[in-house]
Amino acid sequence: MSPFDLPSYLAERRAAIDRALDAALPREDAPPATVHKAMRYSMFAGGKRLRPILVIAGAEAVGGGMQQVMPAACALECIHTYSLIHDDLPAMDDDDFRRGRPTSHKAFGEAIAILAGDGLLTLAFRLIADNGATLADPRVLRDVIAEIADAAGTLGMVGGQVVDIESEGRAIPAETLEYIHAHKTAALIRASLTSGARLAGATPRQLAAINAAGADLGLAFQIVDDILDVEGSLAELGKTAGSDRRKHKATYPDQHGLEASRVRAKTLIEDAKAALVPLGRAADPIRGLADFVFERRS
Amino acid sequence: MSPFDLPSYLAERRAAIDRALDAALPREDAPPATVHKAMRYSMFAGGKRLRPILVIAGAEAVGGGMQQVMPAACALECIHTYSLIHDDLPAMDDDDFRRGRPTSHKAFGEAIAILAGDGLLTLAFRLIADNGATLADPRVLRDVIAEIADAAGTLGMVGGQVVDIESEGRAIPAETLEYIHAHKTAALIRASLTSGARLAGATPRQLAAINAAGADLGLAFQIVDDILDVEGSLAELGKTAGSDRRKHKATYPDQHGLEASRVRAKTLIEDAKAALVPLGRAADPIRGLADFVFERRS
Repeated sequence: MSPFDLPSYLAERRAAIDRALDAALPREDAPPATVHKAMRYSMFAGGKRLRPILVIAGAEAVGGGMQQVMPAACALECIHTYSLIHDDLPAMDDDDFRRGRPTSHKAFGEAIAILAGDGLLTLAFRLIADNGATLADPRVLRDVIAEIADAAGTLGMVGGQVVDIESEGRAIPAETLEYIHAHKTAALIRASLTSGARLAGATPRQLAAINAAGADLGLAFQIVDDILDVEGSLAELGKTAGSDRRKHKATYPDQHGLEASRVRAKTLIEDAKAALVPLGRAADPIRGLADFVFERRS
Repeated sequence: MSPFDLPSYLAERRAAIDRALDAALPREDAPPATVHKAMRYSMFAGGKRLRPILVIAGAEAVGGGMQQVMPAACALECIHTYSLIHDDLPAMDDDDFRRGRPTSHKAFGEAIAILAGDGLLTLAFRLIADNGATLADPRVLRDVIAEIADAAGTLGMVGGQVVDIESEGRAIPAETLEYIHAHKTAALIRASLTSGARLAGATPRQLAAINAAGADLGLAFQIVDDILDVEGSLAELGKTAGSDRRKHKATYPDQHGLEASRVRAKTLIEDAKAALVPLGRAADPIRGLADFVFERRS
């Protein structure tokens, strides 16, 4: 058996996802053009496409294929991108740069930035619905939408952002930081993996394994993000350096130190891999992505 | 045959919808409490519940019942309420009052208002998915979600708001105003009727009739809104009087005069009723709602 080639895997999937996103988003000249330009500006800004790749890896881990889940994969990237646009707004994190470019409201104004986010969130659910049209059992589509909506809404990502905003500039207990990380970031990463698996026909046992791995992976991702934020420079991250620190946001290294944060992230990655054992070699892409989450430099 | 009793019909359905919305939204003390308080603040602010009643009337017109489409009915009210919260934001229409109370960002701050809107939009699609779980054919759920997403997104309501914002303080041709009205308001009203009909098993012929009536009804609703805005007082409308005029937004009466606007709205209502002829008495609720749209004073 040949070892899993992560760089090729990521490059191939990123290229396919970018083609699918280009086809899924309204053209830049479709009226009203401004909002479609803004949606594409943020969507094609050099993102890692981690969430859509996780949707695909979730499907592959239970014997499914990339094309089978591509609309849902695009939907998860739409949700992620909308959340970045809204989080960057002056009333929220008030960030002027992301990935080295002006944020959406800096480039298009606040009104269009809000509406571009709204448009991407709405489009996401249309894409998921399109993905479910071929399923034999409508309950699977219901379950996938419920899972993604719960992970993205006030009981998930939006809820995490609420507590994050409310905690700014205040000393918060470790449990509150875990709440923010689990809801703001980890929930959608977990739902990316499980929705791909569901759409590809996962058994309850397969789904439970992937769900456990996804929760670990999501939390590890955010801890690594915090570590990079503390260590990072403008050149490396492409956004204002140490922006969490500047806004007096609590980070995992603040509370536990850099070394303990690295150890915790590594342990979560190992836990995720342990959860994947029952899936055998089919879960190699998820394992590769787990390593990528830990080792990435941006 | 007894004549259709519109006041009783509206009162009964409003009460049932309010109970269902209360059950569908997270409790006010569910963490994070702030955003759930904000969602409920805007949701229970005395709205007419026109869109959810249209979902129900659409179902009844093809032999369905209220309970069969109640989650989708609630979803349409979530989408409507989110759009009001975001439209009122300082970066958009910058309104301080709606229905006689401070707008969401005035009561909770801009960040929470944006997130409450995001949360309601996300919840809407979860409710629609829940509604579709009992359907025999998953393609119906797909079609309903696609229809509502298209009516709510950048090719519908969000698109209408984009052009509305971009047209502020400028002289616009009559076609642009028709575009704003058709997209910002009429699209979601039409989709309310048709999604109810689809979920209740409408035939293609029934759906075409309801779709045509919905488009007429939606445009009539916005023209009447413009007339009320021009005529209205703070007491009558519960929001800043003549606020469209104050912001130099074009209205139908501006472009065509008050009397011609009334004639056009009345004609659209008659066209809607004509489209409903093939549905017989089952469409009486839609006919009653059409009269209500024309005769309402707020």
